[in-house]
Amino acid sequence: MYITSIEIRDQRFDLPDGVGSDATHTTPKYAYAVCCLRTDSPVTGIGLAFTLGAGTDLVCKAIEYISVALKGREIEELMADFGNEYRRMADSPSLRWLGPHKGVIHLALAAVVNACYDLWAKSRQVPLWQLLLDLTPAQLVNTLDLSYFEEVLTRDQAIALLEKHLPTREERTGVLSTGYKGYDTSVGWFNYPDEKIVLNTRKAMDNGFNAMKLKVGSDDPGRDIRRAALIRQTAGDAATIMLDANQKWNLPQALYVCEKLGDINPFWIEEPTHPDDVIGHQAIARAIAPFKVATGEHIPNKVIFKNFLQAKAMDFCQVDAVRVGGVSEFLTISLLSRQMGVPVVPHVGDMGQIHQHLVLFNHIGMGHEHLFLEHIPHLRPYFVHPAEITGGYYQVPQVPGSSSDLKD
Amino acid sequence: MYITSIEIRDQRFDLPDGVGSDATHTTPKYAYAVCCLRTDSPVTGIGLAFTLGAGTDLVCKAIEYISVALKGREIEELMADFGNEYRRMADSPSLRWLGPHKGVIHLALAAVVNACYDLWAKSRQVPLWQLLLDLTPAQLVNTLDLSYFEEVLTRDQAIALLEKHLPTREERTGVLSTGYKGYDTSVGWFNYPDEKIVLNTRKAMDNGFNAMKLKVGSDDPGRDIRRAALIRQTAGDAATIMLDANQKWNLPQALYVCEKLGDINPFWIEEPTHPDDVIGHQAIARAIAPFKVATGEHIPNKVIFKNFLQAKAMDFCQVDAVRVGGVSEFLTISLLSRQMGVPVVPHVGDMGQIHQHLVLFNHIGMGHEHLFLEHIPHLRPYFVHPAEITGGYYQVPQVPGSSSDLKD
Repeated sequence: MYITSIEIRDQRFDLPDGVGSDATHTTPKYAYAVCCLRTDSPVTGIGLAFTLGAGTDLVCKAIEYISVALKGREIEELMADFGNEYRRMADSPSLRWLGPHKGVIHLALAAVVNACYDLWAKSRQVPLWQLLLDLTPAQLVNTLDLSYFEEVLTRDQAIALLEKHLPTREERTGVLSTGYKGYDTSVGWFNYPDEKIVLNTRKAMDNGFNAMKLKVGSDDPGRDIRRAALIRQTAGDAATIMLDANQKWNLPQALYVCEKLGDINPFWIEEPTHPDDVIGHQAIARAIAPFKVATGEHIPNKVIFKNFLQAKAMDFCQVDAVRVGGVSEFLTISLLSRQMGVPVVPHVGDMGQIHQHLVLFNHIGMGHEHLFLEHIPHLRPYFVHPAEITGGYYQVPQVPGSSSDLKD
Repeated sequence: MYITSIEIRDQRFDLPDGVGSDATHTTPKYAYAVCCLRTDSPVTGIGLAFTLGAGTDLVCKAIEYISVALKGREIEELMADFGNEYRRMADSPSLRWLGPHKGVIHLALAAVVNACYDLWAKSRQVPLWQLLLDLTPAQLVNTLDLSYFEEVLTRDQAIALLEKHLPTREERTGVLSTGYKGYDTSVGWFNYPDEKIVLNTRKAMDNGFNAMKLKVGSDDPGRDIRRAALIRQTAGDAATIMLDANQKWNLPQALYVCEKLGDINPFWIEEPTHPDDVIGHQAIARAIAPFKVATGEHIPNKVIFKNFLQAKAMDFCQVDAVRVGGVSEFLTISLLSRQMGVPVVPHVGDMGQIHQHLVLFNHIGMGHEHLFLEHIPHLRPYFVHPAEITGGYYQVPQVPGSSSDLKD
């Protein structure tokens, strides 16, 4: 199957009032820069990068520059050595000045890379999770770029990690019957009034979720504390509650407010400060233990993830395949996280469409713990095969590809 | 003086063969995304962001989105509280998703911010260095965004640092007579053959430079070692020689090659590995001491600089005002570097045009050591007021503004 042309789309979606709001991103749209790889068959590879609307056109333009190298390529041949292909695209000698490996050009790379994996899975007529499980450890590692990981995860170590988990896969394939557990992110968006949070919490529990998230980071910490107590009271002591500050606090604020929020026994505190601040997160993680720090949705690449892991500055790794360089870099970071004993609980800029595949592979193929995957329902109507959640569990996708197709 | 409209230009410059080449950026053009603030007077504020050609249009488009807030603003009123203005632009709630504070949108912010300072200086009819020296410590700090610096440099500490250096300014104003020392970056571009390096080294010394740089990072470390020995032999033991790997090495390679390169007694080794790798640089700095590590041209923002300084991962801070968020973030990072005892030796994506002003202020206003400033002559013909180097010294610019005007 040959890639014959590349089509790029800027798709933006209005959201109902308050939906998606957090302490930092107060008035979001959701949007995708979409890379479509047309082929000499009816099959099209679709890759997404997520934005909040503004500037999606910049990512689209960058997709055009990066994807040009893919025209004429045969998909099996392309993916057989994709790690090197990835590095060529990520390190294009002049374009990389605009990053490197971050910002607009790296978001664009995510879309391009994701389209390649989607096309690959579709060409083999299997869902992405199945494709990844079907690859040998060496074949999988061939799709990754492990450069700058030499001191923490060599190619041999990556292959060994995957090989080690081959014989025990059956112990973990139960997830293919139960589905992968979800958690509800949408009970407590920042701009929602208290009453709505209480209602949403009850609704989430009625729908089978026992894990959910509240947005914090208010100018008045009293608001955060009140709302956190409210959701704990409504959900009960058995529920798992995560708090998400979306980078709003500086370090002294984070230390002050996290101590107060400990009263509701949160499962984690997410993005307590600036996403680039490895040493700040390290200080917070040390100070708030045994409470845990989660971060990753704004960490652009594997090198910064490496630093976070080395510094023990994150207890949960929230890498997002539509923020880092797509499925390839997601898997690279998942391998390092596994090597270093940190669970991967992705952020889902893709609304879980691609990540429902990736967490299945992380669990079965790498032995990552089956924790839960963020669930955000607001773009359901726009996907051709929206993720199906039943009783709080993502149902295992069976359609070929990465579930990224959007309706026209 | 009111900003009446904003004009944006994409200016790219071809370079002679080999010029600008390094181990990573093998075939550069030099280019600027230019933000021009037109006013109700003949004066125009010009701000630059530097790229290697590819994708300059993306930066230009982002300038359009960011600068729209400036239309109609009066320059003195704008700059009186520019720190908050800066933060509003840097943290635009949806656009920041594309960063935050990195990549295309942050380069665009650099151009916008630099245009504001240029216009401010021109409106007061003084060169930028003079403008900065004329501000009171509080007025200067009002132009900075110190968020996420709370644990290392508060507003009061920043003002105190500037106040402390007020009474001793006269001890440092000698630089206004001598000029600011330069070093020659262009003797040893990566693609230059050995003979050319020898010739250039001799020429540099004839022109009064006793400090110069060689590009390293060859696939064959033997080439680096041979060329480093050659330049040391040509320049003599008294010369100051810097080696620049432009991110090419992974950590084990860096440790191996740096040890060999120590033989020529380099003044620093620059960008030995991936620019985001704080802990990697920390390991290198520890391993190669007493040799020094310089980095910064690809560090996008103050938070990552903070981490580098906290980790003692850089011995020289090479912040670049056309990479970070312009003059404002440059000064913020310079203040923190001063507070933490690390010299600032800027990278000059602007070819030294703006930085010749900034190092004068860093020295006289903050007490930073008068070391030397990178000199790159290749865009001289395109600037209206190109930096003047005499006997190896930047002559103090006297024309109002930041010396950023480009010929049409």
